[in-house]
Amino acid sequence: MEQANGRGADRPEMRWNGWGDPDRAKDLPLAVRGLLPLLLGRVPRPPRAPALDDVRVRPSRLTADDRDALAAVVGPDAVDVTTSVRLRHAGGRSTPDLLRRRHPEQDAPDAVAFPADHDAVRACLALAGERGIAVIPFGGGTSVVGALDPETGRHRAVVSLDLRRLSGLLHLDPLSGQATLAAGTTGPEAEALLGAQGFELGHFPQSFRYATIGGFAAARSSGQNSAGNGRFDAMVTGIRVATPTGDLDLGRAPGSAAGPDLVRLFLGSEGIFGVITEVRVRVHPVPTDRIFESWTFPDFDRGADALRRVVQQGAGPTVIRLSDEAETAVSLAQVGRIGKALAKGAGVVTVFEGEDAAGRRDRTAAILAAAGGRSAGTGDAEDWAAGRFDGPYLRDALLDAGVFCETLETATTWSNLRTLKEAVEAALRDGFDAADARSYIMCHVSHVYPTGASLYFTVLAGLRRDPLGAWALVKGKVNDAILANGGTISHHHAVGRDHAPWLAEEIGDTGMRILTAVKRELDPRGIMNPGAVLADVPIGTTV
Amino acid sequence: MEQANGRGADRPEMRWNGWGDPDRAKDLPLAVRGLLPLLLGRVPRPPRAPALDDVRVRPSRLTADDRDALAAVVGPDAVDVTTSVRLRHAGGRSTPDLLRRRHPEQDAPDAVAFPADHDAVRACLALAGERGIAVIPFGGGTSVVGALDPETGRHRAVVSLDLRRLSGLLHLDPLSGQATLAAGTTGPEAEALLGAQGFELGHFPQSFRYATIGGFAAARSSGQNSAGNGRFDAMVTGIRVATPTGDLDLGRAPGSAAGPDLVRLFLGSEGIFGVITEVRVRVHPVPTDRIFESWTFPDFDRGADALRRVVQQGAGPTVIRLSDEAETAVSLAQVGRIGKALAKGAGVVTVFEGEDAAGRRDRTAAILAAAGGRSAGTGDAEDWAAGRFDGPYLRDALLDAGVFCETLETATTWSNLRTLKEAVEAALRDGFDAADARSYIMCHVSHVYPTGASLYFTVLAGLRRDPLGAWALVKGKVNDAILANGGTISHHHAVGRDHAPWLAEEIGDTGMRILTAVKRELDPRGIMNPGAVLADVPIGTTV
Repeated sequence: MEQANGRGADRPEMRWNGWGDPDRAKDLPLAVRGLLPLLLGRVPRPPRAPALDDVRVRPSRLTADDRDALAAVVGPDAVDVTTSVRLRHAGGRSTPDLLRRRHPEQDAPDAVAFPADHDAVRACLALAGERGIAVIPFGGGTSVVGALDPETGRHRAVVSLDLRRLSGLLHLDPLSGQATLAAGTTGPEAEALLGAQGFELGHFPQSFRYATIGGFAAARSSGQNSAGNGRFDAMVTGIRVATPTGDLDLGRAPGSAAGPDLVRLFLGSEGIFGVITEVRVRVHPVPTDRIFESWTFPDFDRGADALRRVVQQGAGPTVIRLSDEAETAVSLAQVGRIGKALAKGAGVVTVFEGEDAAGRRDRTAAILAAAGGRSAGTGDAEDWAAGRFDGPYLRDALLDAGVFCETLETATTWSNLRTLKEAVEAALRDGFDAADARSYIMCHVSHVYPTGASLYFTVLAGLRRDPLGAWALVKGKVNDAILANGGTISHHHAVGRDHAPWLAEEIGDTGMRILTAVKRELDPRGIMNPGAVLADVPIGTTV
Repeated sequence: MEQANGRGADRPEMRWNGWGDPDRAKDLPLAVRGLLPLLLGRVPRPPRAPALDDVRVRPSRLTADDRDALAAVVGPDAVDVTTSVRLRHAGGRSTPDLLRRRHPEQDAPDAVAFPADHDAVRACLALAGERGIAVIPFGGGTSVVGALDPETGRHRAVVSLDLRRLSGLLHLDPLSGQATLAAGTTGPEAEALLGAQGFELGHFPQSFRYATIGGFAAARSSGQNSAGNGRFDAMVTGIRVATPTGDLDLGRAPGSAAGPDLVRLFLGSEGIFGVITEVRVRVHPVPTDRIFESWTFPDFDRGADALRRVVQQGAGPTVIRLSDEAETAVSLAQVGRIGKALAKGAGVVTVFEGEDAAGRRDRTAAILAAAGGRSAGTGDAEDWAAGRFDGPYLRDALLDAGVFCETLETATTWSNLRTLKEAVEAALRDGFDAADARSYIMCHVSHVYPTGASLYFTVLAGLRRDPLGAWALVKGKVNDAILANGGTISHHHAVGRDHAPWLAEEIGDTGMRILTAVKRELDPRGIMNPGAVLADVPIGTTV
């Protein structure tokens, strides 16, 4: 089912300098425009961003011979050095990425290659190794941690390897509930292909509409249905990988004690060891029942305690999420309704899908009610579900209005949740105060485990000058606070380049030595995504 | 709560050349003695095994200076070179191990050291590295894959590192349901310590009474309650490790995307990278309800299909296991009843513990009944639970009677279950036929996943001569058959030395290169458990 030639599936292109479908970009809702000056003070509207064709990019450093050699591997139509295509592969979708996309002069990879299959990927890596060219694997382009920056490392050029032609459902084992998907398949493509056979993957991160199966694996993604379906880590039963020095085909059985689970070494590797080309995942029948219910708790702490009880008692919601008072107040959980009313307390959304949905709803509701929650009917939960992928559109409108908006996330144990939340909020607040900016900080819990939960923060700030520089300082303080207070530097956004300087503190020097040893073994020239995950680790030499 | 000195906890010693409590060793039940000649023909009773004091062992190759240096690290009473203690650390509890324990001349480590804590472990590894002495980490001594063989590798001597003094509950976080246990804590010790606080780990492999928390982690164990509580892999939230070149403290959050999950690189590492000294695990309140129910299916295939439906529909049994027709016939699942009656069909045991046990029982029963099962009341399931840890005693009695008895296990997808079962059975049958021995082969499914299940085989054979040599040939054919038919070489017994020659076929050359690179980085002299997991990989030099 792979595309045999050309650029692959007829896939909608994301807005080059913002989120999603360009036709769906919209202005700020009137209510928000009224609310913002109250929260953040007045901020100047930034200069209009340049059009794609007006951006200046340095010429490609690939030689004609490089381009010919790449074309010999991937096909003559599958190497692109045009400015527009290079710019579309110049980074991910963090707020700093989008702010950089507003500059008249921008960085970009020297070319974009579109390999058609696993063998072409492997050949690209071999060629890049021989010629001393760095390679950035590119799935849906939705990284928010700088994993797609066109960094050359010690090499003379850098190529973005767009995996969109590795698309399709390669195998379905309906009895075992297992599917093999090509790594470049997007979330919607995967669900359409599986749905036609009666199955669902059920992985719905906010990036779902554009992100790819390989990206979910490489970044250790977690979706909004994680309470029911697990993190993407837990869905993966096998992977195929091309590295500069050899292939891997890992994951033979649903459970194994045949040495360490090497699949887990590639989940979260973000392209620094090689390219994931196929992913085998657990799938389940498309759910028929779907029950929505929202709840209100007096405050975040009571709500968090209720979520803990639900997951520790195995009540079985498919989705369960809790907004803190600040997020509940502006109804950010329901993008469509933002600003309509300043709700009180802490809101919880629950969704139940699949087998025994009604029974699981009843068991969950009993626990939530006993823990101090009040059912608020179905409306808010349905609104959340309807707008669940639309948050990033709002960010673009905020940036257009000069309002800084970014998200970050971490996780910790239940007993440490309040401490970590307060530490992150203090770091954010103090950081923006130092930049002389008013800020509004919201938080939600959207991924729960028996032993703990994630914390996802959304920040709005009235940064009046140098938002990139100001945010870099704030974000650094937040990372320090996370590590000093028992959190992980990322629950599901991954490391990329933005978190890389903090990884050593999380996994220790010996942990860094392990990752470096694996990278040296598989990628001795250091061509794979240099600077991502492992910052400042000298691997490879120029050729 | 660690023991400050001496040899640590007052722990019952396992029978040195067999399983378990020496006082519980017993003769074969009369019914079995009647059944065996019918199944296997007559076999000669082997010569009586030597007593511990009569076994000849080569003198320790440690110098007086080595012993003094070790004693300086672990304490003067904590280095032992006596023959009896060396023999008690000479291997695990596979059938080949037990057959070797019946020889008048045996191999054994040159000494046994009993470090008291993490720092003493680290100091032992440093000392061993300096002096060119191999180190075999030793927990409960229950390996059945040769992970504890006293192999020196390229070194001049080998020391067994007995971790029993690293015992205790180091920390309990009741709100998060998380406990940190010292690695040498045995299963019963852990449950007693946790139970006193109202919590349970709930990991019950057959080795439970002797095996240790660190061993469960190092070998990727799976327990009988895995349907409800998950494999040990899934229970671990963090580990502390001492390696010859640095420490690790891994696992900061219940979910993380901070690079690859390095905890998983040590789960299943069987001491080849270092020594796991502490394990943080998920725990849950001690269950109050416990419901037993057994079922009968017309045949194995119908039973397996029913188990698949139960796990894919998330019905939630704590234990679910299916014996094939051969195992059901001799009631091997109920050791106490073996041979009492030749039951028909394929028997299923279910147990439900914890929250909503009755509801989960009802949902499971509905699926089993709809899939063609007939409830057989509570008796067989209760019998199974009562005898769940006693199987190995029966093996000792069989070996005493000259009957070869061994187990092996694998796992695969649901769609491949029947193919793999038949391939393993054919390899076993053909192998014993070639050895001119009658055999009786039984199988059960005891670990289920949405995508597949384990297969656990018990074989009895009337090997009349050289059982060690004959079994080596048969076992080799079985491993080949497993890999040729889509299985894993081990679902929960691990690799050790017995499976090591097959690991490269399971994870590929690139996978082997990864493990070797990590070992070279952490253990450059190759002192850690040489020959385990990585067979014939040249690491380290003599000093």
